[in-house]
Amino acid sequence: MAFVKEIAEQESAALSGHVLHALEAIVGEANVIVDQERRLEYGHDKTEDYAFLPDAVVRPGNTQEVSAVLRLCNEHGIPVTPRGGGTGLSGGALPVRKGLVLSMERFNKILHIDELNLQATVEPGVITEIFQNAVKEKGLFYPPDPASRGSCFLGGNLANNSGGPKAVKYGVTRDYVINLEVVLPSGEIIWTAANVLKNSTGYNLTQLMCGSEGTLGVITKIVFKLRGLPQKTVLMMIPFVTNEEACRAIAAIFVAGIQPSGMEFFEKEAATKTFDYCEKVLNSPVTTKLTEGMNAYLLCELDGNDEEVLMKDAERVMAVVEQFQVGEVLFADSAAQKEELWKIRKNISPAVNWYTLTKSDDVVVPRANLPRLIAGIKEIGLRYKFNTVCFGHLGDGNLHVNILKENLDDHYWHTTVNEGIGEIFKLTVSLGGTLSGEHGIGIAKRPYMPIAMSEVNLELMRGIKKVFDPRGILNPGKIF
Amino acid sequence: MAFVKEIAEQESAALSGHVLHALEAIVGEANVIVDQERRLEYGHDKTEDYAFLPDAVVRPGNTQEVSAVLRLCNEHGIPVTPRGGGTGLSGGALPVRKGLVLSMERFNKILHIDELNLQATVEPGVITEIFQNAVKEKGLFYPPDPASRGSCFLGGNLANNSGGPKAVKYGVTRDYVINLEVVLPSGEIIWTAANVLKNSTGYNLTQLMCGSEGTLGVITKIVFKLRGLPQKTVLMMIPFVTNEEACRAIAAIFVAGIQPSGMEFFEKEAATKTFDYCEKVLNSPVTTKLTEGMNAYLLCELDGNDEEVLMKDAERVMAVVEQFQVGEVLFADSAAQKEELWKIRKNISPAVNWYTLTKSDDVVVPRANLPRLIAGIKEIGLRYKFNTVCFGHLGDGNLHVNILKENLDDHYWHTTVNEGIGEIFKLTVSLGGTLSGEHGIGIAKRPYMPIAMSEVNLELMRGIKKVFDPRGILNPGKIF
Repeated sequence: MAFVKEIAEQESAALSGHVLHALEAIVGEANVIVDQERRLEYGHDKTEDYAFLPDAVVRPGNTQEVSAVLRLCNEHGIPVTPRGGGTGLSGGALPVRKGLVLSMERFNKILHIDELNLQATVEPGVITEIFQNAVKEKGLFYPPDPASRGSCFLGGNLANNSGGPKAVKYGVTRDYVINLEVVLPSGEIIWTAANVLKNSTGYNLTQLMCGSEGTLGVITKIVFKLRGLPQKTVLMMIPFVTNEEACRAIAAIFVAGIQPSGMEFFEKEAATKTFDYCEKVLNSPVTTKLTEGMNAYLLCELDGNDEEVLMKDAERVMAVVEQFQVGEVLFADSAAQKEELWKIRKNISPAVNWYTLTKSDDVVVPRANLPRLIAGIKEIGLRYKFNTVCFGHLGDGNLHVNILKENLDDHYWHTTVNEGIGEIFKLTVSLGGTLSGEHGIGIAKRPYMPIAMSEVNLELMRGIKKVFDPRGILNPGKIF
Repeated sequence: MAFVKEIAEQESAALSGHVLHALEAIVGEANVIVDQERRLEYGHDKTEDYAFLPDAVVRPGNTQEVSAVLRLCNEHGIPVTPRGGGTGLSGGALPVRKGLVLSMERFNKILHIDELNLQATVEPGVITEIFQNAVKEKGLFYPPDPASRGSCFLGGNLANNSGGPKAVKYGVTRDYVINLEVVLPSGEIIWTAANVLKNSTGYNLTQLMCGSEGTLGVITKIVFKLRGLPQKTVLMMIPFVTNEEACRAIAAIFVAGIQPSGMEFFEKEAATKTFDYCEKVLNSPVTTKLTEGMNAYLLCELDGNDEEVLMKDAERVMAVVEQFQVGEVLFADSAAQKEELWKIRKNISPAVNWYTLTKSDDVVVPRANLPRLIAGIKEIGLRYKFNTVCFGHLGDGNLHVNILKENLDDHYWHTTVNEGIGEIFKLTVSLGGTLSGEHGIGIAKRPYMPIAMSEVNLELMRGIKKVFDPRGILNPGKIF
């Protein structure tokens, strides 16, 4: 993309020996990485084939060290790009202006699970799945559940306001965070709020941090609220003749007053590529069969504590979907079968990226506008000559669109395809939607922000950025 | 309070004839109020006995008029205090620096209830209860439910991030707002987001507006998400020997994995004063009886769609509370009886304020710290020689504390009692809590903000304020 080149050509504030020694004095020599090969590991994520080499990688071990590093970098005007698990899909954690990558990997402790108040205090480098399992052991539930949960960090989830399949019933990361310890670029350390469930005490700095992609401060502790763990689930796979029918069925299920705990969609092509990937790459073939003549699938999960109520709800779902052109509904009745259906869903993105290079979009619209969105995306793909694989959290109106490089030449991929993406975003906004539901803006969607937002909005955001980070050292070149 | 006097003594930018004519040209002569008696109606709310006379009251009828009024006032440096239903409990909508009160009373239209997407677009001057009923007619549910719902405005609910009894299960106002039309002091009009359920597209301006008490911009349209309406409720009144036992039982109910849709607490004295008020003022005596020897009461509501599940949950609540010193539990089994129990709860605040002048606090702590909070408040009351009535949303850890003037002399009330309130806030913060759960800071709690927040936090908030409102015309003198 044009802007990547432009950013890469800007001067970096190369690190002097003096600064490197100061960094080593703060975090220890072993935690300042200058070796080029190792630095490069911190220069890419899961976004397309982007790569940017930082001048150094620093791995602080506690809040005081983060504070000292930021103070030093602020004095010297050195860019600092905070990094979590490196699973980002918009390039948000890439050091596009060089300087330091601040890897939060050593912040990997669950500090306290407060079973009396149903809260937990964690460090931002804890892997999401490890945290989910730790609270599950105590009968508690942390619902945000990005597909990368096995390797992404909670801090990265916060920076991007991650969601996942459970969001449709339980909300996204922002719905669980109640308080944050944050280090500002000045090195000052604040708590954004208090460990309480309701708070009307001044501006909501917690929510401002959430989704700010590491541009305002570095999160060093997180307080989450937790829920009781639902004991039972029902999972159905519902095949549809067309994408549009599947989308219309989704809206109808919610209008009928049913509240699924998961409402995932995938096209047939997403499934076939995933079956192929599971067999050839994971060596774990899928036994579930697709239905002849069916082109779109919904995974509908219901959860709760009462088996009978769940079965009644499942019957209500059936009554709704039978009004559409559907194939035979698969009820997953064993844990293994449920796991397999989720395995299909969670491997779509790796499968498609194994098949070919992709650009990944993450648009979101009001649920009832999904049929028009998907039809429009397919039409844009035809017009711009690219194939797409569509899947995602359609109960939330949140569609992932992977645009496939396949045989497109590099120049076309970096120019005309981007124009086509602009068309997808314009369509999304015209349907009342916006650019990103859960992946963030980073660098990949940055050029498209004016499609979703007025210059006045962007100026407000830039103004807020300046309040927190007057010298602009934190994750420069992102969002706006 | 000292600071009220100080603010009142500041110069006001008196309105010139030129400005008044310009205002009349924008909103029409009938909507510019200069008559002193009528102006005074807009100079107080439900906070203690505060009153401040604005120079004029302006009642715009649409977004363009708000824009023109703000642009004019911004040019002339005239303070503008937006006002909703006038039910505030922290003085947030009082014109402490004179200038204009911008009454949003003409913004009273429900613009669209989108039954396909379970969303509604409303103007900020719609009364909360009218909106609740309008969506209920369509089988939908808007849960935020402040006690003043019969007269408060949705815009005011947003400005203060209001909660109410349902928040314990369904969240507060901020959990329902997804997009806002806002007029900035410059007169520019923005939408903060999009009408979507998930959004990771830039900083969250929606959540920044929510709870900002009219200091950043004037909300002119609100998009809420809605839920399906639960069909059934069970309501129990559970009497306890002591406040502390009641508080410990609350934590135990949640730890047992039960999720009540209401968990309200009141002291015996709150109930007796309310019974008195209902009989003598409302002419609607309460028939429910209090239990001999019982000093604290919980109202525990469960909701859902399945009667059997609800009864099972009610049994689980009973099993938990029986471990404490409780009296006989009253199951409200008719609609009339449920209504009466809620009538008691909702009239506590008016009843106590009818009995004597009060200062109303709204502290919030982690649930398990409630026993220490209430015991500490009673101890502070003894030490500072004031009586308190405690009640509120204890499932959320959110306690309302009404401090009673009774026979205290004015000087003591305005000085020593405020010191006692400072002690209550210090105790709250030491228990991991903060100043306000749902009433906001306004002027009443403004002097105490440094107890809850570092100067760095306050500086960030002042910085954000300047980004939105560089000339400081919007609701000056509030929060910080």
